Amino acid sequence: MAWQEPCVAALARVERTDFLSPVCIGEVANVSAEITYTSRHSVEVQVNVMSENILTGAKKVTNKATLWYVPLSLKNVNKVVEVPPIQYARKEQEDEGKKRYEEQKLDRLETKQRNGDVILPVINPDRQTKEPHTVGYSQSSLIHLVGPSDCTLLGFVHGGVTMKLMDEVAGIVAARHCKTNIVTASVDAINFHEKIKKGCVITVSGRMTFTSNKSMEIEVFVDADPFVDEPRERYRAVSAFFTYVSLSKEGKPLPVPQLLTETEDEKRRFEEGKGRYLQTKAKRQAQMQQQAAQQ
Amino acid sequence: MAWQEPCVAALARVERTDFLSPVCIGEVANVSAEITYTSRHSVEVQVNVMSENILTGAKKVTNKATLWYVPLSLKNVNKVVEVPPIQYARKEQEDEGKKRYEEQKLDRLETKQRNGDVILPVINPDRQTKEPHTVGYSQSSLIHLVGPSDCTLLGFVHGGVTMKLMDEVAGIVAARHCKTNIVTASVDAINFHEKIKKGCVITVSGRMTFTSNKSMEIEVFVDADPFVDEPRERYRAVSAFFTYVSLSKEGKPLPVPQLLTETEDEKRRFEEGKGRYLQTKAKRQAQMQQQAAQQ
Amino acid sequence: MAWQEPCVAALARVERTDFLSPVCIGEVANVSAEITYTSRHSVEVQVNVMSENILTGAKKVTNKATLWYVPLSLKNVNKVVEVPPIQYARKEQEDEGKKRYEEQKLDRLETKQRNGDVILPVINPDRQTKEPHTVGYSQSSLIHLVGPSDCTLLGFVHGGVTMKLMDEVAGIVAARHCKTNIVTASVDAINFHEKIKKGCVITVSGRMTFTSNKSMEIEVFVDADPFVDEPRERYRAVSAFFTYVSLSKEGKPLPVPQLLTETEDEKRRFEEGKGRYLQTKAKRQAQMQQQAAQQ
Repeated sequence: MAWQEPCVAALARVERTDFLSPVCIGEVANVSAEITYTSRHSVEVQVNVMSENILTGAKKVTNKATLWYVPLSLKNVNKVVEVPPIQYARKEQEDEGKKRYEEQKLDRLETKQRNGDVILPVINPDRQTKEPHTVGYSQSSLIHLVGPSDCTLLGFVHGGVTMKLMDEVAGIVAARHCKTNIVTASVDAINFHEKIKKGCVITVSGRMTFTSNKSMEIEVFVDADPFVDEPRERYRAVSAFFTYVSLSKEGKPLPVPQLLTETEDEKRRFEEGKGRYLQTKAKRQAQMQQQAAQQ
Repeated sequence: MAWQEPCVAALARVERTDFLSPVCIGEVANVSAEITYTSRHSVEVQVNVMSENILTGAKKVTNKATLWYVPLSLKNVNKVVEVPPIQYARKEQEDEGKKRYEEQKLDRLETKQRNGDVILPVINPDRQTKEPHTVGYSQSSLIHLVGPSDCTLLGFVHGGVTMKLMDEVAGIVAARHCKTNIVTASVDAINFHEKIKKGCVITVSGRMTFTSNKSMEIEVFVDADPFVDEPRERYRAVSAFFTYVSLSKEGKPLPVPQLLTETEDEKRRFEEGKGRYLQTKAKRQAQMQQQAAQQ
Repeated sequence: MAWQEPCVAALARVERTDFLSPVCIGEVANVSAEITYTSRHSVEVQVNVMSENILTGAKKVTNKATLWYVPLSLKNVNKVVEVPPIQYARKEQEDEGKKRYEEQKLDRLETKQRNGDVILPVINPDRQTKEPHTVGYSQSSLIHLVGPSDCTLLGFVHGGVTMKLMDEVAGIVAARHCKTNIVTASVDAINFHEKIKKGCVITVSGRMTFTSNKSMEIEVFVDADPFVDEPRERYRAVSAFFTYVSLSKEGKPLPVPQLLTETEDEKRRFEEGKGRYLQTKAKRQAQMQQQAAQQ
């Protein structure tokens, strides 16, 4: 890529990602990436992760992810640089990319509004006073001071650092709810609404929103407190939904205890979660039918 | 907290800490903290660590610690900022806090003087020429170049980095002495006499000072060499006493071989260590009697 | 050491290193180092690593290494500072040091020329289309963005970070070739031709060059892309040969499948590797005879 001016790519969004199979210790992870669409100010990158057992040579697709980046000027990190267009092999590819671009733009907008609406304090409660399987019983949060080694060259938090902390909190929520081994099944689109600067204290909070028979949906927020050098309020920086499944010691999926909703908000969020669950299920079935038809 | 000007908190002292039970892999550590006293230029923070086994829900107090911080101005790290006073629920709390404040101030002063008195080179000796169970046989040291990822935002070493290295050296001393598994039982007050800057080389040295039937006391020094950008001599930055116990493979406490003292200094330090041991023992017994009386 | 002006030591070269025995988890590594020769602009440092099993007290030499450093001015990292001469115990030591200095200088020059000659793209190929045991089948590469925590105080990559990535890639090449457990037996002289700055993307590539009955030689390149803030081409920063052996599950050496060379370049490199192998073998036999004669 030849940019007009020196820039860095800031992660703006990770599309819904399914974790198809785990990478085991000693395996080699092969990561490949390509640019699949460019808008005037953003770049879509498709990443494929394959795990390879070197001894047997066996390979498995671990996960595929789609990431959106925004190029920022190295001289002025608040300036978004223009992206030089890429060449598409077929006109179709450009059209499909544009469709994906418009969809994610809409979704980002919607999430931003939802973030404005609902800002709930999620503090580690005294779990002793809460009934098991309620939302309050499993909700969890952690705080983290953003240090130099969490940051990119420009002094902003690496997207990967935030995502790891989000997965950690979501995993604790899931394990507290079902008291078994749990594993991340998928991550819904993650939107990075705002950059987080070195020196911020971030609060990562998770609460369960929905359970199906075999899965749990957990909403995770990242809030940043730029308390050190800016006279600025705490702000919502990232938000996402994680889906976990419960596993037996042998690695078999287990039934998940149903989430007990108490307040009106909890009931509403449960219904919204159910909507996302049914939508994803329908989409997956449509894909499977399409694939079956193509074979 | 609303400070008058932007500042960071520099760790000045960690009070004596007992390690009551270990945190196991897979457990969730719950850390909570509150400000319990403020003087004009320092803040006392009480930290509680609980470990939670998510699968069983069982919780245990892992350790409690009291830390003293000094706020430094972000614009001038050599300037100590004034601390806005906190509100106490009862007058009694303020009085007790003041007592703790005066006590630690005295102890810091005393340690500083002791540091001035005794500066001993602790170099890894040729253990082959030393008799087992002598001070020289187990004494150990390591050096570490303070890099960017060891530091806070202002470029000074994190207290936690220093404490980890101190525990590492003390653990090697203890294991070399008794040739069994060992575990940290307590850490005596750690005083951070001076800040350590990025680019310093630090030498962490440990030597055994005292053994009881079931425990070993190890003195640990941290000396800093600001060799890169300052025309300054090596200085004593941190010092503390660590207490270790020896464990069998089943995790049961084992008798500890007695420390063989050879020089006058070693004999004097052994007696001083015995004094600290008996004092701590008496204090603990008094606490237990008090607790028994309250029940 | 009293330098005329504040400086840092940049790693310029690591001489051939044999790994004599592994350091196991829980063992203490004792590292000692001394300056053994100084030229006007470089310093030779001998490092010895011993592993100590604390419980049994047993010690083993793990490896010995010779490193060459060049002191750079802290005020201007492009300026090499003059090295104050050291005192030698015997005139002989100085002469031997000078001989080592001249030899490494020649070897550095030779490697630099070879680097200029051969710049091959080593991209992860589709292994499915390659025959097992060919060069193309096992060749591997990884990319890494040099972040703040990879760097020294002056913002250049730590030699140790580069060496770890090189060992990682070489290990993957070796494991892909023989599909067994593998272990590093030795690293040929590593030359650090040029510094790598924070913000570079480095590509670490490895390809097998030679196999004997029991060992594999892998050539590893590190290329740096200073794409962020310099209008400069990708350049070869480091190169080295690693030797691996194949191990059974019980840790016994296994025969290594012979490398299949396809192109003229591969055949030439195989012969060059054979030359290095025979030279090292002859040197080791001469040393053993010398040692036997001295006893």
